[in-house]
This record gives sequence, structure tokens and C-alpha cells, in this order.
Amino acid sequence: MGAISQTLCARGGLRIPGTMILAIFACASACQVVLSSSPGVASSPKGEYLSIAFGGAVGIALGVWVSGPSGGHVNPVVTLSLAVFRDFPWKKVPVYVLSQIGGGCLGALLVYSNYFHAISIVDPDKTRLSASLFTTYALDYVPAAACFFSEFLGTAVLIMVLFAVWDKDNGPPPTGLVPLVLFILLLGEGVALGMETGASLNPARNLGPRIALAMVGYNRHILWNYRSQYWLWTGILAPLTGGLAGAFVYDGLLYVGADSIFNRSSEQKNSASDGPASKTRIATEAV
Amino acid sequence: MGAISQTLCARGGLRIPGTMILAIFACASACQVVLSSSPGVASSPKGEYLSIAFGGAVGIALGVWVSGPSGGHVNPVVTLSLAVFRDFPWKKVPVYVLSQIGGGCLGALLVYSNYFHAISIVDPDKTRLSASLFTTYALDYVPAAACFFSEFLGTAVLIMVLFAVWDKDNGPPPTGLVPLVLFILLLGEGVALGMETGASLNPARNLGPRIALAMVGYNRHILWNYRSQYWLWTGILAPLTGGLAGAFVYDGLLYVGADSIFNRSSEQKNSASDGPASKTRIATEAV
Amino acid sequence: MGAISQTLCARGGLRIPGTMILAIFACASACQVVLSSSPGVASSPKGEYLSIAFGGAVGIALGVWVSGPSGGHVNPVVTLSLAVFRDFPWKKVPVYVLSQIGGGCLGALLVYSNYFHAISIVDPDKTRLSASLFTTYALDYVPAAACFFSEFLGTAVLIMVLFAVWDKDNGPPPTGLVPLVLFILLLGEGVALGMETGASLNPARNLGPRIALAMVGYNRHILWNYRSQYWLWTGILAPLTGGLAGAFVYDGLLYVGADSIFNRSSEQKNSASDGPASKTRIATEAV
Amino acid sequence: MGAISQTLCARGGLRIPGTMILAIFACASACQVVLSSSPGVASSPKGEYLSIAFGGAVGIALGVWVSGPSGGHVNPVVTLSLAVFRDFPWKKVPVYVLSQIGGGCLGALLVYSNYFHAISIVDPDKTRLSASLFTTYALDYVPAAACFFSEFLGTAVLIMVLFAVWDKDNGPPPTGLVPLVLFILLLGEGVALGMETGASLNPARNLGPRIALAMVGYNRHILWNYRSQYWLWTGILAPLTGGLAGAFVYDGLLYVGADSIFNRSSEQKNSASDGPASKTRIATEAV
Repeated sequence: MGAISQTLCARGGLRIPGTMILAIFACASACQVVLSSSPGVASSPKGEYLSIAFGGAVGIALGVWVSGPSGGHVNPVVTLSLAVFRDFPWKKVPVYVLSQIGGGCLGALLVYSNYFHAISIVDPDKTRLSASLFTTYALDYVPAAACFFSEFLGTAVLIMVLFAVWDKDNGPPPTGLVPLVLFILLLGEGVALGMETGASLNPARNLGPRIALAMVGYNRHILWNYRSQYWLWTGILAPLTGGLAGAFVYDGLLYVGADSIFNRSSEQKNSASDGPASKTRIATEAV
Repeated sequence: MGAISQTLCARGGLRIPGTMILAIFACASACQVVLSSSPGVASSPKGEYLSIAFGGAVGIALGVWVSGPSGGHVNPVVTLSLAVFRDFPWKKVPVYVLSQIGGGCLGALLVYSNYFHAISIVDPDKTRLSASLFTTYALDYVPAAACFFSEFLGTAVLIMVLFAVWDKDNGPPPTGLVPLVLFILLLGEGVALGMETGASLNPARNLGPRIALAMVGYNRHILWNYRSQYWLWTGILAPLTGGLAGAFVYDGLLYVGADSIFNRSSEQKNSASDGPASKTRIATEAV
Repeated sequence: MGAISQTLCARGGLRIPGTMILAIFACASACQVVLSSSPGVASSPKGEYLSIAFGGAVGIALGVWVSGPSGGHVNPVVTLSLAVFRDFPWKKVPVYVLSQIGGGCLGALLVYSNYFHAISIVDPDKTRLSASLFTTYALDYVPAAACFFSEFLGTAVLIMVLFAVWDKDNGPPPTGLVPLVLFILLLGEGVALGMETGASLNPARNLGPRIALAMVGYNRHILWNYRSQYWLWTGILAPLTGGLAGAFVYDGLLYVGADSIFNRSSEQKNSASDGPASKTRIATEAV
Repeated sequence: MGAISQTLCARGGLRIPGTMILAIFACASACQVVLSSSPGVASSPKGEYLSIAFGGAVGIALGVWVSGPSGGHVNPVVTLSLAVFRDFPWKKVPVYVLSQIGGGCLGALLVYSNYFHAISIVDPDKTRLSASLFTTYALDYVPAAACFFSEFLGTAVLIMVLFAVWDKDNGPPPTGLVPLVLFILLLGEGVALGMETGASLNPARNLGPRIALAMVGYNRHILWNYRSQYWLWTGILAPLTGGLAGAFVYDGLLYVGADSIFNRSSEQKNSASDGPASKTRIATEAV
């Protein structure tokens, strides 16, 4: 079974449990807080808005501890940024991203199973009310460009911080404690940038649960047609472009490691594994 | 006295203080928040639901720091998972589990003594109202299977994360900081999966305080007969099976350490202490 | 000035800033939360009960980081426990304890100066209402023995955990992160054991601010005569005896280090600095 | 681009992203909590006062992780204290401070852009109501001296703690985890010393966003004329003098490292890089 494991691992399938755990805590904390505020569900509320911010923070920290702190591949934005700006191999990207979306979908299905009865009480018709506990929607008056900007900004900060704490020249924390930084980071995103679009910051955590909702019978109008493909431009394109912008700022202005595309000499770009580049190549060693 | 100490230690009696501390914080935080919300007890509430989630998180972190972070034996599910999937010796399991239940019982008795007067004000007849501050009950409309699933899911996640942060190949945190991971984990379980069944996730933390309640005079109907042996299938069997499932997923899919039953060659299964197996055998060295 | 510094240090005067910082955060968080709930002070409350628990947790963590994590001498109970159960020199105890009380008094004076105007609005007659923001009082219906027990239990847990995380045989966290454990510990005490007596757990944090209140004109009835010398038996004797009980349990049952009085051979008790004893003597090296 | 990067770095321009991130979380958490409490903005509040304390804590932790934990140059008070009391070169101070103010301004502009629509709903006339989400104001009844004292005290504690956790003789945490200490510290300042003046404690975090507000059209009466140059004496002079006082206390009374001005022999003051001084010179190595 170890052989199967290593094969699966080489194909990135192991990002599934990490992203699954991320989605479990993110979705379930929203479910618990919002559903329990209905008197038909619980005699007193089992949390408040701050609990949801903590839920998201716990999710990413544990997800990264499970899938390996040196890679942190529970978010397609991270995987893509490492492929563009460091030497993470492009051929692995598709399987990684599919695994992440699969993990997000699986986590949401488990949470839906868990809170099925309370959801039936609060929202028996499967409207946006309960769909918003699993995937994200925007405040009504916020225009499309502002929704895009909110996710763009949040993800740019996320990637800048992540690249900073992987940077050996910057006095980083021990690699095994990078998830603690992510806990603090996502707590901040939740309390500071979560009002308008829910601070998804992760296409897999957004799309995976949306697919799960489609599987359990939510209709296409609230999932895919909402605000002309909101799921695509705010849920996916905004974090992707924001993350790349954050990585560009960090690598272009702050990073001196030789594994960045900005700092590689032309020979290094051709010959893979010689000295200085391999010295700082930590984030990409996760298979 | 050092000699007595080491003998006791060898028999697992030392899991008592760890589980006792776990139960103290878990039970006392529920007592403080719920009792103080009664105007007869305190002029203003001394906490909110989030405080209870923090209480459970503090309890497990400190419990594991006291009983040894490399073993984390404050939960029978952990002990059983290590016996099944790693080479923790089976002959130690019974004393460990009894010690854990004893510690849980002792902690609950101390908390009951501490909050005796406030409990007498709020619930003089010793009903489920105050019993639920020590052990767990379910929301009325949640069917038995969903209660089981809630504890199963929460414990599966718990064991997956714990196995991940003990895994030397996965960039883990320093062993002495594993309790910090558990703090984050239990905070998440409290805010995300605590609504339906209280996120006990630990047969000793559930059964020990239940025995304590029996000792101080709560009647058998609310302790043992509630929902046809709820204490057994949701309080004990659900976390046990969930934990084993989580360990199975982690070891089967992600773990490459030679001490897992999935990765051992047939010789290694017979001869105990040779090379690669002993290298990764960290979790089981606690006596 | 370095010479003066080292002399002062040798006499324990350096415990002043640590305990001062502890008292600043513990007192000021109570002030901010309670005073701001009065509409005359602030337009909206600037915190809630959980904020006070965080304030106490922050206070001890920062206090210990400032005064040295290996000793943690911001609480007379710790100093006394190390003198009784390890080989911390008795002749240093008086100056340490006086420094701690002085630091607590100084911190409370600074906080009183800071919140003077708001206190004048809420409680111009200097009654127990504002006194309780600096030192601790009990809920009215809780009998004396229960008050004593509450502080006894909380401090016993505190010392057990502290001895555990200083124990090199127990897989402890890095010494420089012991204050993080104390942060978690005091957060737990605040959310779980703070209802009845305020979880002071520290004679210096209780008596120092009480002296400060006397200096700024609070009358003796609410400071010293309240409940027949409550300040003495609940504020001082309960944590002292509780702490010694916790240390007794830890050293008697769990500790195997040769520097404990339980584990020392008779020769070691006489000859100070030979092998095994010095190996584990970490907590007492702070001068 | 690495060459440009290193040149910029040598001139301190890299403090911009760190202070920008600090300002983003500090300003955005205030925006989210206060704006969302208006029914026209969100159907339910997206946070509470404690969320703002967490926002500030997250901001400083991430800001320091990004700009380098060994220097922590996201606050002019820190830069100035290191120049006065350690051997941080004075010629670098101006560029560092300008970068910090620029970062604070940039962060506030990004947050203003993000919450523009909600601000337009709650405060279309750009009054102090929304200005207070970005920079700090005082409670009306608090006199000028008390405002000054509040920021003075808070910043003195901040610098004392920071100097303590950089002090190699004091059992400090790993350098890469200093931001975690700052997280705890700023959480404490927020819950304990934030009521009267908002606990800015940082001239760049106060002045930068004030400049940003001027750029987006807030009038000079609420920005610069409020309470006769409140922005100058409470926003800038109070933290600067408080920080120097805290550094004076720590270095004068507690520090024994040879790099402090108090502990340098006259030769060491002239000859830069010999033995004992360089051993403890950690905080100043950031370029």
C-alpha cells in the first residue's frame, strides 16, 4: 500500500485530504453559526461572526499541516504562483488543481451530510440562504469590479505573506510552523476583508463546494447564473490574478533567492540543479 | 518516590493528570458560560459560545503538554489508533484507557465541586440542563445516525491531523508544539462541528464526567437511558470508529513511514527494533 | 550602568517590569471592557468578557517574556514552588516576592492614571465597582470555602502545567515559547475558572493592585475588611497552597528529573553541582 | 531585477510592503466591523470590537514577517529606538521612516478603495465617523494629557517587550517567531489600552492613513485641526517618546548585551565590529 501511496503522491492526489479539511472547517463553521441562530435549530446561537473567521483560519492551518507545510498546496493560486515564479513543474499543475477542487467538493459534501437536518429546517427550498454557507456570494450593492478587487487584494496579501515566510533570507519561522502563520493570516482576512465577498481567496474552496451543491440539488440559477458568472470572475479569476500580482511584487521587489525567475541567470534557467538555485528551493520539493 | 513514579508511569497511570486537566477546562468553560448567563448567578454573562470552544481547545493543549506531546494519550481513540496502526503495545492499552476515563471523571468532580453553588441555583433538581455542562447531549431533532456521523467525522479529522503532525516526512512542527496544533484543531471543532452533539470526540472526556455525574446523584434516566444508550454509540463508538477511519485514510494514502502496518515488510513485523522502522517511531515511545 | 543592572538583577529587582506588564494588561482589559459598557464613557462597548480573558493571557505571556521564560518569576507561587521543590535559593525569595508585589502595584497605578477620567465618570465615589477592575472580589453567594477552592484549583493546574513544560523528559516546547503555553493556560483559566473569584491565581497581581488602590484613596472597608480578610485567604493563601499542591502532584507522580526534592539522593542534597542534578536544572538558573 | 531589488532594499524601500500590510489589516478590520453594523451595509454585523483587536494584531505580525522579523521596521518608533540605543545607522533612518509612512498611506488607500461603496452608504459626507476607521481620534471627554499618556504608555510597553524578545540573554523565542509575540502584544493593547485613543502606537500607521484620507478628499478640519494638532502630539510625539522611554528602561535596567549604548566601553563605541558587541547585534542586521 506504501507503493500505491507514493504513486498517488507523485500525482498530487494527496492534496485531496488537505483541501478537504480546509473546506470542512470553512463550510461547517459558517453552517454552525448561521443555522444555530435560527430558534428552530438550537436554543441559543452556537457562535458569532468571529467564529466563522476562526473556522477559516483553522481550516487552512490544518489543511496545510496535513498536505505538507513546505508546499502548502491546498490552494490552486499557490500552486500556480510556484509554477510561474519558482520552478515548480508545470506538468504537475493540472493534477494538483483537480485534486484541490475534488478535496473542496468532498469536504463540502461531508459538511452537507452533517448539517442536513438543520439545513432542511432553515432553508428547505435550497435557496441562496443555505448555499452561501458553502460557497461565497456578494453583498447586493457592491458592484462587480469591487467584488473582483476585494478577492484580488485579499489573495495578493495572502501570497506575499506566504512567499515571505518561505524566504530563507528573511528570518522565517520554522517550516513546520508556517501553518500557524496561515492561521493568523486567514483570521485577519476573515475579520478585515470578509464583508463584501466572504474572503474565499481560493478557487478550489469556492468551486469545489459549488460543485457539491449542484450534486445535492441546488439549482443552476443560484450556483452558476448568479450575477453573470460571478463564480468565475470573483471566485476564480480574481484570486488567481491577485495571487500572481502578490507573487510578482514579492519576487520583484523583495526576494533575492536564486530560484525566482527574476533572479535566475540565463544558464540557470537552462541547467536545472546546480548550486545556488537548489539552495533556496524549498517550496517546490513537495512532490 | 521516583521509583514509585516510574512504576506508575510504566503502567500508564500518568495519563490521569493529562485527561483530568482536559476535562477541567472543557467542563468548567461550559459551566462558566451557561451558568453565568442566569441573572441569579452573575450580574453579567462571563463568556459566550466562543469561550466554550476556547475552553475545549485549551483543555486538550494543556492535557497533552502535561501527559507528553509525543504520545498525546489523553484520548482513548489516540491510544487505540496507535495500537492498531503503529506498534504501540496492546498490553498497555487497558491501563491507559482506564486512566483516561479516571482522569476525565476526576476533572469533572473537581469542576462540579467548584461550581456546586451556582449549579444549585440554576438547576437544583439535577436535570439534563446542568448535566449537559459536563457530558454531551444531542439537539432533539437530530436523528441517531446523524449524531453518530457528527462525532465520527470530527474524530476522523482529529486523528488525520494528529498523524500528520507526527509524520517526520511531512514537515511537521516541533514535537513540543504539537499541543499548539491541537489547540487550533479543537478550536475549529468547537466552532464548526459542535452544534449537534457538542464535539466530544473523546470517549474518556465523555464517559468519565458521566460517571462523575452518577456519583454526585444525577439519575440514570438522563445519564444512561437517554435516547437508548446514546452515551455508548455517540459518546464512545462513534469517535472510536471515526478515529480508526481517519488513521486508515492517513496511513493508507499519505504515510510512508516504515512503522505503519501498511508499510512494514513481513520481516519487520516480526523483528522489532531494526533500522528504518525505529527511525520514525516517535509517537509510541511514551511509556 | 550594566554593572548596576547586573547587581539589581542578582537581587531580583528585575521581576518588577515583568509583573508590572502582567498587571497592566490584566487591569487595563477589565477597565476597558467594563468602563466602556457605560454610555457616558464610550458610544459603544470596547470589548466583552472574552476580551478580559485575553487580557490576562496576554499579560502573563508578555510578563514572562520580559522577565525571562526559564524562570517565569512574575508570580510568588512560582518562586515559592521552585524554592520548595527544586533548588531555587531561599535567600532570593523575599526580594523576588517584594519585587513582584511592587511590579503589580506599579502596573495598577499606571492603569489607574490612564483610565482616571473614565473611572471618575462611572464610579466617582471609589466603590467596589471600580476597585474590582484592579483586584478581585467574589460573587456574593459563593461561600468562603468555595472561593478558596476556586483559586486553589486554578493555581494547582497552573503550576502543574508550568512544571510540565519545563520538564526536559516530557517533550517540552522550546523554552522561549513557554510564554505561549502560559497565554493558552491563562486564556483557559479566564474562560473556565474566572466566574466566582476572577481567577487571580497570583498573590502579587492581587495584592499589588490592592495596595495601589489604597494609595489612590479607596477606603479600607472595600480593600481589607471585605469578607473578613478575603484579600488574605483567597487572594494570597489559596493560590500559594494550590500551587504547592500542584507542584507536589507533578513532582511526586510525574517528574523523574534529579533536581526534584523527591528524586534527589542524600548525597546530591548536600553537594550542589554534580552531574545529573545540574542537567535538568533549568528553571532555577535565572538569577 | 535582483540588483534593483537589492539597491532598493539597501535604501529601506522594502519597509513599504510590511507597513502596507499592517495598515491594510488595521484599517480594514475597523471598516468591516463598524460599517457592517449599519443595516444598509450588511444584513448582520460582520464582527465585534474584539475583531478589531485581532485585526491590529494580525497586521503587525504579518507586517513584520514580510519586512523581516529581526528588524521589525514597520514602526518608526522601533527604527528610532534601535538608532538611539543600539547601533542601527542614523543615515538609514529617514528613508526607513518615509517608507513606513508611505506603506501606511498605500495600505489605507487600498482599504478605502475596497470599502468605498459601504463608506458612501454610511458616511457620504466624509466626516470623522468614517475617518476614524483609518486613523485614530480620542474620546471627547479625555483631556489632551491623558491622550498623550495613553499612547505613551502603550508604546513604552511595546518597545520593552520587543527589546526583551530580541535579547539573547533572556531566553527569547526563535527570531522567526517574534511576530507571534507581536500578535499577542497587539491583541493585548487592543483589548486593554484601545478605549481612549485607539492604541495606534505607530506614527506611520497613524500619519500614513491620515495622508491617504486627505488625498481622497476628507477636509483639513477633521484631519489636521482636530483638537489643535492632535495628529502630531498624540499620533506621533506620544509613541515616539513612549517608545524611547520603554527602550531606556529595558536597556538601562535589564539588558546586559554589549551592543547597548549603556553597556559599551569607550573603545567599543569607536571601533565597530569587534567580538562581544557583534555577538548580540541581531536587531540591526536588517539592511
